[in-house]
Amino acid sequence: MLELYYAPHTCSLVTHIALEEAGADFKLNLVDFDKNEQTSQHYLAVNPKARVPALVTNEGTLTETPAMVIFVAQTYPEAKLAPLDNPYELARVQAVNSYLCSSLQVAHAHRMRGYRWTNEETAIEAMQRFVPRSVADCYGYIEDHVIKGPWVMGSSYSVADPYLFTIAQWLEDDGVDPNQFPKVIEHRNRMLDRPAVAKAIDEEWTKQQR
Amino acid sequence: MLELYYAPHTCSLVTHIALEEAGADFKLNLVDFDKNEQTSQHYLAVNPKARVPALVTNEGTLTETPAMVIFVAQTYPEAKLAPLDNPYELARVQAVNSYLCSSLQVAHAHRMRGYRWTNEETAIEAMQRFVPRSVADCYGYIEDHVIKGPWVMGSSYSVADPYLFTIAQWLEDDGVDPNQFPKVIEHRNRMLDRPAVAKAIDEEWTKQQR
Repeated sequence: MLELYYAPHTCSLVTHIALEEAGADFKLNLVDFDKNEQTSQHYLAVNPKARVPALVTNEGTLTETPAMVIFVAQTYPEAKLAPLDNPYELARVQAVNSYLCSSLQVAHAHRMRGYRWTNEETAIEAMQRFVPRSVADCYGYIEDHVIKGPWVMGSSYSVADPYLFTIAQWLEDDGVDPNQFPKVIEHRNRMLDRPAVAKAIDEEWTKQQR
Repeated sequence: MLELYYAPHTCSLVTHIALEEAGADFKLNLVDFDKNEQTSQHYLAVNPKARVPALVTNEGTLTETPAMVIFVAQTYPEAKLAPLDNPYELARVQAVNSYLCSSLQVAHAHRMRGYRWTNEETAIEAMQRFVPRSVADCYGYIEDHVIKGPWVMGSSYSVADPYLFTIAQWLEDDGVDPNQFPKVIEHRNRMLDRPAVAKAIDEEWTKQQR
C-alpha cells in the first residue's frame, strides 16, 4: 500500500488529491511541522531533504511533486490523470508542473522560506517585499498562456489541476490581488466542486490524521 | 523537424545533449543574450517566458527542461533515455530532474539572476554571498543520496545525466569546492567522454551557429 507523508497547507495536497482522484488505496502520515518532525531521525530516513511530500511505494520512496503525480497517473491509468500515450501532450502537462515547482512555488517560497537563499535578515525582508510582484508575474503568465479552461490543459482534467489549485490557495497571502487573475480564481473555485478535492482538504485541514 | 532554441552556458544544453543522444534530426537556433534576443518580439512569440530553452515540434512548442527531455525520451524510445515503462523508475528520474530545476538550479540562479526575487541591490548582494552555501547544500544531497554511479540512476544512462552535467559546469563559479563532491566531479568527467556530449558542447561553445 502507498503511504503519503504530508503536512497541511503545503504542496503535499497535490499528490493527496491525485491519489484520491485515482481511487488509490493509501495511508496518510502527518509530518507535524509545529513539532519540527520534518527534521526528526525518523522522517530524515524517509526523506533526507526534510520536506514533504514523500510517497512510500512497494518499490521505494518517491519525492518531488511533479514526479509523484506522474507516478500516480501511470500507476492508475484508468483514472486518466495524464495523456500518457501522447508524448507532446504529456510533455505539456509536465511543462506546467515544472513551471509551477521551479517558478511559481519558488517565488512564493521567498515569503516564508527566504532563509534558503540568504542568512541576512534585511535581505529576507527585502525578498518578502518583492513576493507580491514576482508571484503576480507568474500568475500573469499562467492566466495569459497556461489555463485553457475549464481545466488547466483544456477539456481534460490532469495532474496539472491539483498543482495549480494547491499553490493558488496561497495567492492572497502572497499579497496578490485575485481580481487580476479571473481564470486562476475560476479554476480554484471549480476544483472545490470535485469530490476528491473536498475529501483531501477535509482530511488534511480538519482531521489532521496520523 | 524539431528546432531547439538555445543559448550557450544555459540549461538548453541538457535538451541539446538528449537530442544528440537520441540521434534526432533537429535544427539549432541561437538566442543571442548579448543582443537581448530573448526579449525580442520574435522570440516572445516562441516562448513568452523570455527564457531558453524552447523546443519547436510539429505539434507545438515545449518549454521547461524536465518536460522537454522526457518528450525526447518518449519520442525516441530506441535510445533508451528513460525507463518509460516502469512508473517507479521513471518517477525516480523525474524526481532528480525536478530537484535539479527547483532546488539546485534555483540556488545557482541567486548568483546572477537575483533580480527575479528582489529589486534591492543590497539584498541581491546578500543572496550572492549565500550561493556557495546553498548550492553546496544541494550538491551534498546529490553526492550522498542521488548519484548511484556510473550514471546518476546507476547502470542505465538517462536524461538525468545531461541535466546534472550541465548544472555542474557552474559549480566552481558558484564558489563551491569541487573536492567536496568527488562523485559529482567524476560524473562530470565521465560525461565528457560521450560523443553526444562532446558534439553538443562543440556546437554551442565554438560554432555558435544560428
